[in-house]
Amino acid sequence: MADFSIGVDLGGTNLRIAAVDEHGNILERVSLSTRVSLGRDYVIKAMCDSIRQLTAQHRAAGELVGIGVGIPGIIDPQTGLLREAPNLPGWVGIPVQAEIEHQLGTKVVLENDANVAVLGEKWLGAARDFDDIAMFTLGTGVGGGLILGGKIWRGMSGMAGEFGHMTIDCEGIPCSCGSRGCLEQYGSATAIIQMAREMARSSGASEAFKSACSAPDFNARSVYDLAVQGDEQANAIFHSVGRSLGIAIADLVNAMNLPIYVIGGGVSGAWDAFAPSLFEELRQRSAVYAATEPSAGAPTMGKTIVTRALLGGEGGLYGAARLPLISGS
Amino acid sequence: MADFSIGVDLGGTNLRIAAVDEHGNILERVSLSTRVSLGRDYVIKAMCDSIRQLTAQHRAAGELVGIGVGIPGIIDPQTGLLREAPNLPGWVGIPVQAEIEHQLGTKVVLENDANVAVLGEKWLGAARDFDDIAMFTLGTGVGGGLILGGKIWRGMSGMAGEFGHMTIDCEGIPCSCGSRGCLEQYGSATAIIQMAREMARSSGASEAFKSACSAPDFNARSVYDLAVQGDEQANAIFHSVGRSLGIAIADLVNAMNLPIYVIGGGVSGAWDAFAPSLFEELRQRSAVYAATEPSAGAPTMGKTIVTRALLGGEGGLYGAARLPLISGS
Repeated sequence: MADFSIGVDLGGTNLRIAAVDEHGNILERVSLSTRVSLGRDYVIKAMCDSIRQLTAQHRAAGELVGIGVGIPGIIDPQTGLLREAPNLPGWVGIPVQAEIEHQLGTKVVLENDANVAVLGEKWLGAARDFDDIAMFTLGTGVGGGLILGGKIWRGMSGMAGEFGHMTIDCEGIPCSCGSRGCLEQYGSATAIIQMAREMARSSGASEAFKSACSAPDFNARSVYDLAVQGDEQANAIFHSVGRSLGIAIADLVNAMNLPIYVIGGGVSGAWDAFAPSLFEELRQRSAVYAATEPSAGAPTMGKTIVTRALLGGEGGLYGAARLPLISGS
Repeated sequence: MADFSIGVDLGGTNLRIAAVDEHGNILERVSLSTRVSLGRDYVIKAMCDSIRQLTAQHRAAGELVGIGVGIPGIIDPQTGLLREAPNLPGWVGIPVQAEIEHQLGTKVVLENDANVAVLGEKWLGAARDFDDIAMFTLGTGVGGGLILGGKIWRGMSGMAGEFGHMTIDCEGIPCSCGSRGCLEQYGSATAIIQMAREMARSSGASEAFKSACSAPDFNARSVYDLAVQGDEQANAIFHSVGRSLGIAIADLVNAMNLPIYVIGGGVSGAWDAFAPSLFEELRQRSAVYAATEPSAGAPTMGKTIVTRALLGGEGGLYGAARLPLISGS
């Protein structure tokens, strides 16, 4: 007998649903394509059907505590409407939570996916036992989530955690947000691919580098594989990724002096390639970090931990399942 | 009959003490030179003597609620010792609070001066009715304070609010902290003087500008006076101040989505000279700000306010007097 909750990770591509028990064990999971093109009603119905199925299967073994849904968009804290959701066209301005609740006849907790990811890491991942956490999610773009005093910090209008648009280089690469030199232009998978393509056109690039960049399945992972093999250009790219992350994290360390910063998202798989320059930059950019880094002296001072996420792609699923367990807190 | 508290603003130069009633009226104030060179014991004794005098004079009219002291240093949250205090040589590692309490025989609340300043603005200044506040103090250096959820946010080791060392220009001016391109190198009075002196050596500087810069009493205020008179170089300096502040505030808006950012310290007197470029930069650097600026549309969204401090040099005195009133909260 274990009480369980349902966690939903609703992405622009994949829709994943799991029954998770109160200790964080996945009892069962379902993975579907989101099929955004079939429209909002289709997606919500498919989600609710799966949730009902999972719930029915596990109800005999324990009580359903609640349902949490992580969604790639900004939820207006005043109205509950979805305000921005670039990967879910047609969903903006819609009371998604109310629609799901209406179909299921039960309460649902809806939360921004970056906030859900950090919640997952706090529950079962790299940030267990921490109440103040910043998490960077390095994927196609760069997202972020903050937990302060044990609670998700959404900000006044639900828009906190836009770490991807902190300025790294004030005269840097123009960003789609209208600014320039944003972290997203240096630390995302998209940025890595972009940097690699530019380098491949330069005279200094090795033949292996050029050929990898022109392969049909070329992606950020290809650049990492080259870096691991010692390719100089590929390593320069991850040096730049690490440096940019170091600058952004240093800004947060200086401003907030949090105990832990977690790096997640697909790019975090390249941790060993970018971490050395991240820490080098961080140490130089933040006297607060230098005074509190784990290897530093003063034993009475807290330690600033910068580490990679532990849950990988599962973080969102765990975090979503965690939502109803902490709802109202 | 009005209950009152004692606020102490202990600076490297001036020691100011006031009896303040519970509504924020200053009943009486004392201003002394800190006389740091006479040593810590001298300063603490002088402070305690004045506190005793003030307390005795007002005890007949109301009850002393408590004593708060703002101090230019970092207080270790674990040990209560002063950890860093560049303007109070010989005070580091000392249990200052315990010493003052011992001399006065009563409880004292000690707090970092930047945190005290934001507390003052929250109580009686620009940030009344706000529970989530960031304040920049632009003086000789650039300091900062954060209030989150109505409480001072000190960070894990008491070092939060180092906004002066957020990176504005990653390849910029070297900073004494070991980094480069820190806000302090662009937004402090020291930076303004430095920029002016450099400009005075350039061929483009006007005669008025050059002569102001070589005056014996030349300071940041002189540059502001020139700017008000329409001097191009002086205005370029404040444009740079505003731009740098805009970048730093944009980073905080993007990361935390707070409702209010307050600019205080002596340089904030030049608000009208630097504010236009501050807002221009902020709008460009932060889509969150652009969506929530007071003139923007969406009525359900909170508004992001960026404004100058209202209490000027008194903020620290009021904030210190406020400390014992909220202690323990």
